[in-house]
Amino acid sequence: MGRIAALILIGNEILSGRTRDDNIQFLATNLGELGIPLREIRVIPDVRETIVNTVVEFRARFDEVFTTGGIGPTHDDITSPCVAEAFGVPWEFHPATYDMLKEQFGEDFNAARQRMAKLPRGAVPIPNPVSRAPGFSIGNVHVMAGVPRIMRAMFHELAPTLKRGNPVFSRTWYTTSLFEGTIADGLEAIQNRFPALDLGSYPFHRDDGRRGVALVAKGQNTDDVNEAARAIYTLIKEKGGDPIEGEPPP
Amino acid sequence: MGRIAALILIGNEILSGRTRDDNIQFLATNLGELGIPLREIRVIPDVRETIVNTVVEFRARFDEVFTTGGIGPTHDDITSPCVAEAFGVPWEFHPATYDMLKEQFGEDFNAARQRMAKLPRGAVPIPNPVSRAPGFSIGNVHVMAGVPRIMRAMFHELAPTLKRGNPVFSRTWYTTSLFEGTIADGLEAIQNRFPALDLGSYPFHRDDGRRGVALVAKGQNTDDVNEAARAIYTLIKEKGGDPIEGEPPP
Repeated sequence: MGRIAALILIGNEILSGRTRDDNIQFLATNLGELGIPLREIRVIPDVRETIVNTVVEFRARFDEVFTTGGIGPTHDDITSPCVAEAFGVPWEFHPATYDMLKEQFGEDFNAARQRMAKLPRGAVPIPNPVSRAPGFSIGNVHVMAGVPRIMRAMFHELAPTLKRGNPVFSRTWYTTSLFEGTIADGLEAIQNRFPALDLGSYPFHRDDGRRGVALVAKGQNTDDVNEAARAIYTLIKEKGGDPIEGEPPP
Repeated sequence: MGRIAALILIGNEILSGRTRDDNIQFLATNLGELGIPLREIRVIPDVRETIVNTVVEFRARFDEVFTTGGIGPTHDDITSPCVAEAFGVPWEFHPATYDMLKEQFGEDFNAARQRMAKLPRGAVPIPNPVSRAPGFSIGNVHVMAGVPRIMRAMFHELAPTLKRGNPVFSRTWYTTSLFEGTIADGLEAIQNRFPALDLGSYPFHRDDGRRGVALVAKGQNTDDVNEAARAIYTLIKEKGGDPIEGEPPP
């Protein structure tokens, strides 16, 4: 069994529809490349008990846990104290972070901003090259900002410190001349030959009428992925389709 | 306590980063307008036990549960039998759906496609005006396709059948002349006056350098939202900012 990850998006703005998520795909793709694929994602509100319970559950179930959101200066930014609670450690000023933010804000370093200088005891800050206030890692839990530009910058700081697995490798064939239902049985037979791989069938319908289906073989064993991709090519041919390698054009 | 909803996105394609989610914001917004706001979202893989357990947990915790994905003809489309298992009912051919799909596919109505004619016993189909194979409702669980165009069409069929709550109403003021940390304490004081409302602070940074913060008051009591919006306006003025009503321009 390889290394697996989970993601917790914390905050009401995705749940209310105000904000469109712009973090999931970035993290899913990058974690796959690091060989720590995402196995579950939860989007939860800014509610103390929910955050604490989810962190406690996830840090036991997954090798690495990532959170986004809830680390700013406002009243609903409660991720950091909740993670401290989940680890059973105090939430206290982190001296180096306090000094850095004090220098940044000067006279404007008010009570709200001082909250951003508190971390769970034992946490290691994740630098924030965009707006300074850091994320942090504690154990296998990595706490990042929700603003996509800041989250990405933090992830690039964090990534080199993560223990990698085998990268997820994938190959895709698509066809515009067959329907999903025509090849489903054949695809299941290939899946049964390669139980460790993730074989997917993704129909597409474009607004201009182009349609078809993309078949994806994905996994952490390159040889198996290549062999399954060959079997997918053969399946499309057998069913009278025209296999084209790669993702269908948008 | 008003009516609350949860959403389960089923399928490996979001978790792997292959597909960018295009359903969450649509459902979050529309459910808010129906007065059944989303309180939690889970993205889970095509794994039987995970799907069954999540449906069992959510149908007890939430008034309405929506799922997307995993109802096509392929081997990894296991949502429908898993929902049957979660309800402890057989998964069996639904005669009217069987007849409809048989007429649609004719000679091509193979074993894979016949799976789409099976529903949990007692389920009510949700019509699919795009590609025919239906979703379904059973109890408080509503099972829809993952392809956004089909999901939206199903949701429009489903929405009139749902019991509504008070619609979520929101008002937003933004300012380009203050930082989030300057108004956080004042915002918390407003939140404390209106504990049933969801007050949010959303900083924005545009690539061209425009920046600021949007303050949102949201809730199901219109008078409270209006009063909180007035308090937000006053707060921005007091801190020397220039309040503008509405969402900041993109």
